Amino acid sequence: MSSSLRINAERLNTTLQTTCTKWGALSAPSTGMCRLTLSQEDKETRDWLVAECKALGCEVKVDQMGNIFAIRPGTARNRNPIAMGSHMDTQPAGGRYDGILGVQAALEVLRTLHENKTETYCPIALIDWTNEEGARFPGAMMASGVWSTKSATRLEACWATQDKEGTFMKKALQEIGYLGGTSCDYKENGLECHFELHIEQGPLLERANKSVGVVTSVQGMKWYAIRVTGVEGHSGTTPMPDRADALVTASRLITAVRDTALKTGLGVATVGVIDSDTSSQATIPAGIDFIIDIRCSTDNLVDQLASAILGTFDGIIEEENNGTAYEIKRTWGLPESKFHPHCIDAVRSSALQEVSEGQIMDMKSRAGHDSAWTSRVCPTSMIFVPSKDGISHNPNEYTSPEHCSLGAQILLQSVLYYDERARKDEY
Amino acid sequence: MSSSLRINAERLNTTLQTTCTKWGALSAPSTGMCRLTLSQEDKETRDWLVAECKALGCEVKVDQMGNIFAIRPGTARNRNPIAMGSHMDTQPAGGRYDGILGVQAALEVLRTLHENKTETYCPIALIDWTNEEGARFPGAMMASGVWSTKSATRLEACWATQDKEGTFMKKALQEIGYLGGTSCDYKENGLECHFELHIEQGPLLERANKSVGVVTSVQGMKWYAIRVTGVEGHSGTTPMPDRADALVTASRLITAVRDTALKTGLGVATVGVIDSDTSSQATIPAGIDFIIDIRCSTDNLVDQLASAILGTFDGIIEEENNGTAYEIKRTWGLPESKFHPHCIDAVRSSALQEVSEGQIMDMKSRAGHDSAWTSRVCPTSMIFVPSKDGISHNPNEYTSPEHCSLGAQILLQSVLYYDERARKDEY
Repeated sequence: MSSSLRINAERLNTTLQTTCTKWGALSAPSTGMCRLTLSQEDKETRDWLVAECKALGCEVKVDQMGNIFAIRPGTARNRNPIAMGSHMDTQPAGGRYDGILGVQAALEVLRTLHENKTETYCPIALIDWTNEEGARFPGAMMASGVWSTKSATRLEACWATQDKEGTFMKKALQEIGYLGGTSCDYKENGLECHFELHIEQGPLLERANKSVGVVTSVQGMKWYAIRVTGVEGHSGTTPMPDRADALVTASRLITAVRDTALKTGLGVATVGVIDSDTSSQATIPAGIDFIIDIRCSTDNLVDQLASAILGTFDGIIEEENNGTAYEIKRTWGLPESKFHPHCIDAVRSSALQEVSEGQIMDMKSRAGHDSAWTSRVCPTSMIFVPSKDGISHNPNEYTSPEHCSLGAQILLQSVLYYDERARKDEY
Repeated sequence: MSSSLRINAERLNTTLQTTCTKWGALSAPSTGMCRLTLSQEDKETRDWLVAECKALGCEVKVDQMGNIFAIRPGTARNRNPIAMGSHMDTQPAGGRYDGILGVQAALEVLRTLHENKTETYCPIALIDWTNEEGARFPGAMMASGVWSTKSATRLEACWATQDKEGTFMKKALQEIGYLGGTSCDYKENGLECHFELHIEQGPLLERANKSVGVVTSVQGMKWYAIRVTGVEGHSGTTPMPDRADALVTASRLITAVRDTALKTGLGVATVGVIDSDTSSQATIPAGIDFIIDIRCSTDNLVDQLASAILGTFDGIIEEENNGTAYEIKRTWGLPESKFHPHCIDAVRSSALQEVSEGQIMDMKSRAGHDSAWTSRVCPTSMIFVPSKDGISHNPNEYTSPEHCSLGAQILLQSVLYYDERARKDEY
């Protein structure tokens, strides 16, 4: 079953670094990236990717959410593509590996198949999913979410999201020429399965001294928008005991979010965004908004942690006892995503061809990924490689060239492993 | 010494309400105001004010900071004007009385003098000080500060401040036609003294059931800019114990600011502004900025409270013990401003003509005012009238028509009281 094909490690790493330097690099010596989705930098990266894939004989389709499907034909007439997907957009101050590695590795796999004239049974697709980060247009994993749910309402809602400058997402897609005609719909533009190589973005592989993570699921997550209200007042004239200061109450709630997650050990909880109604130094804040991001390995644990956190809030309000109050809105969530045994097998078997069993670890993904969405409608799994110091969403994000190419080689083998079974009609 | 002149209470209150409704009113039924300095609404208010004053025979001068001096001539040849100053700009969600009452009352005094053909010894000036609020261009009491310090550097620095849209203050002055040619300098464009009628903006008069505050000083204040730093990380993959979350640390510091001010009773301390480097829900915040506003009745107490607050910070950083850190920058301050006995006497004597002694209270101003600046270079005092529920910097700010006209009448009498003594060369 094993193939002798080898990806070209140097070509992979060189291509990854040079394209990052060209499109979206923060100022040197930082190797950080700011390649916001549908920005000029993203457009130029996309244009380059499309040209590269076409040069390898791929048919390129762009769907209504700007997702790029570059498809290398197979011999079967009735099979959907085996996909290798990830994303090329980054956080405003992100790194060179989150998402980017997965797409670059997929391109390297296509290059390897092409130069070896390998005939596959199923078509093989590279996918660049739009707006995985949700950093410019709110809503992480946005476009894989639309593809996986086939909902016209959802498509319209995503098109109608706005960035900070008030640009609608649909307009941004049009402006860079990536509002495609292909239906963003897993039924009309389906896949056989979906593999994704990604950096771990956490410290577990490195701490356990492992090289490869076989990802069996993505942890569940929920977001809650909290609005704290108080009473505006003059910072000089309002006596301390008379104040209903929304920022002080919000500060205590935010501290409780962290303390509860730390103390219970049920999962992680983060307040990443805070906004105040007032921008005056001389005014007691009367309205504060923040978002709580809760993630645990199972949906049950997410609910337990959410209850524990939100359960502390009323006590704080009672202690403050000054008229400040809060409202909670569930804004977003993604249940735990269990990956498919076929794809997990493909990844594990392929990893074992490259490294010893002691180098491999089964793990749950603690970050959301496009694969969390695809797993709801087609067999999916992921390959993780180590992140130095567990750092991600940060310019210091780093994964060694050796781990990048190891991941790409396992991606190639996983695709071929799955294809072989499809050819035999086992999958 | 007492004069029989009476201001026209109905005219005062009607003019105040109609001009607020016309220029900068928030949507009804709110009686709130958003009349940011040098905005179109401010320009139209200024144009109206200038026309009204000219119709009363005043000479109008506009200085380099857009301060408007409308001067009614007196008989003396060698005296500067006795001034009645305040401001017409508001907070983004302010009320109809803070500043506005002082200028409207000054106009009502000019109207009263004009219709009674009263000859004064000193010229009498109405002043509209620019950008008292510091809400659009950072820096409260900005233009009275420039006038009172006669510093070309300070003038240039104020011109170079920018609003959120990046507009320079000098450009904003030019655009509305209020970059005047008169030197913004108390030496070249001097005053005999400065009176200011203002709402208390706090609850003390109302709680003591008094009608008039004779203001003897303005409390000292200092602002500190705090920057908290941590390490960015992914909200899903960074284990709770590994985090250096700048927002959690900032939240604890902000809570400590409030707790320390409340516990020590030394004065008031407020965090009115908070900003985060990140706008991503999925990122652990690594940089948070906030400003602490500390005000106490004496400079010594300001320093004591600042020490007590900042003294709690290291303990919190040690407890967090996760790599988060803070930096402190003193950004702004105004020492306690002691008002002049002559002006305080003028206000107290004038108040006693209108109400019984039991209705009058000597008090320190807890808010900053243009008078805090003028008191450094010319005799100054203020008249306070009650604020309903002590609310200010809020659309619900309210002072009754009776208290507004009482304040204006005392302003008129204070000016005449001072003028009489100047005529006799006592002042």
